[in-house]
Amino acid sequence: MSDVAARLVQQIKFIAEADKLKEIFRQTINTQSRRAENDAEHSWHLCLCVIILAEHANEVSLNVLRVLKMVIIHDLVEIDAGDTFAYDTAAMAGQHEREARAADRLFGLLPSDQALEFRALWDEFESRATPEARFALAVDRFQPMLLNCLTQGAAWNRHGITQTRVLERNRHISEGCSDLWAYAEKMIQEAVEAGHLRTTPG
Amino acid sequence: MSDVAARLVQQIKFIAEADKLKEIFRQTINTQSRRAENDAEHSWHLCLCVIILAEHANEVSLNVLRVLKMVIIHDLVEIDAGDTFAYDTAAMAGQHEREARAADRLFGLLPSDQALEFRALWDEFESRATPEARFALAVDRFQPMLLNCLTQGAAWNRHGITQTRVLERNRHISEGCSDLWAYAEKMIQEAVEAGHLRTTPG
Repeated sequence: MSDVAARLVQQIKFIAEADKLKEIFRQTINTQSRRAENDAEHSWHLCLCVIILAEHANEVSLNVLRVLKMVIIHDLVEIDAGDTFAYDTAAMAGQHEREARAADRLFGLLPSDQALEFRALWDEFESRATPEARFALAVDRFQPMLLNCLTQGAAWNRHGITQTRVLERNRHISEGCSDLWAYAEKMIQEAVEAGHLRTTPG
Repeated sequence: MSDVAARLVQQIKFIAEADKLKEIFRQTINTQSRRAENDAEHSWHLCLCVIILAEHANEVSLNVLRVLKMVIIHDLVEIDAGDTFAYDTAAMAGQHEREARAADRLFGLLPSDQALEFRALWDEFESRATPEARFALAVDRFQPMLLNCLTQGAAWNRHGITQTRVLERNRHISEGCSDLWAYAEKMIQEAVEAGHLRTTPG
């Protein structure tokens, strides 16, 4: 078998394995059917956010291709590790270790040069060490809030999440995109005023 | 309202409208749950194919960012026009006109500079006029075939599709990525030998 053919076999096995991402369901609710969003849909929606909103990034010379690569692969680890709800602090203990093991297995399916490239991209996303990672994180935090606002706070209310926690959890958006955070603060305030997000627990 | 804030309002309306793509179901079946794939999942899976397989493109100096932008937005028109099954020649009549009207409405939600940019990207994809469009088309044709092969030909058999039609419909892959077409021809032959794809109608 030629080198090209052998690489394609490995790469397409990885692409087939990744199909499992379509079955990892999140707490967020889609706007039309009101069913739970899955990670593949979420990852696509983030891609769309990136190409539409990149002009607003804090970093003027953002490498948009690297941001897209990060958001395309950022949730693959949940194939093994499952989805961890953004406000579930108990489940968050040990989350990074579970996800790092998943990254070893999944990216390890690829030819070794790509395994290194994509594992490094996932580490970059997780560490928030670059403007690209901080912008990717900004859209990853913004998109579920947007869906929550468009579904009258469905996921927030099911879990008793307050405005204070939403603001705490998501203010990292400003590190990647302060204009988007300004928009989000206003959107959160409007959700409170509409009665879709509570200000006190219980 | 500042220019930035006004742009964000338009852009986020577009991103919210695009959420409808998660409810446009295709004929292709996902490998795990065996339910129909939707366009958002499909678009994400194409993004993954692009970043993993770009090295095999016929065009050595492929602009991968432009390919990704195309695959992210290529199916948005189906929000208005619906999905057209790849082998439904009757439904294909008038398909481009329906989709072009949808493109006018949907991309028209964006600020005018972005409306022009994304409409041009969609036209580029549709016309197959560039190496980027031909590579985007190659993965758009390959990924449903892959899912079909991984689901014992589920969608092919439901619609009575033969090997000849699969080869005819998908040989455009070679114009964007001849190595991927070589892989696909072998995969199709294996599907025939496994009894998952018929060689004669009926």
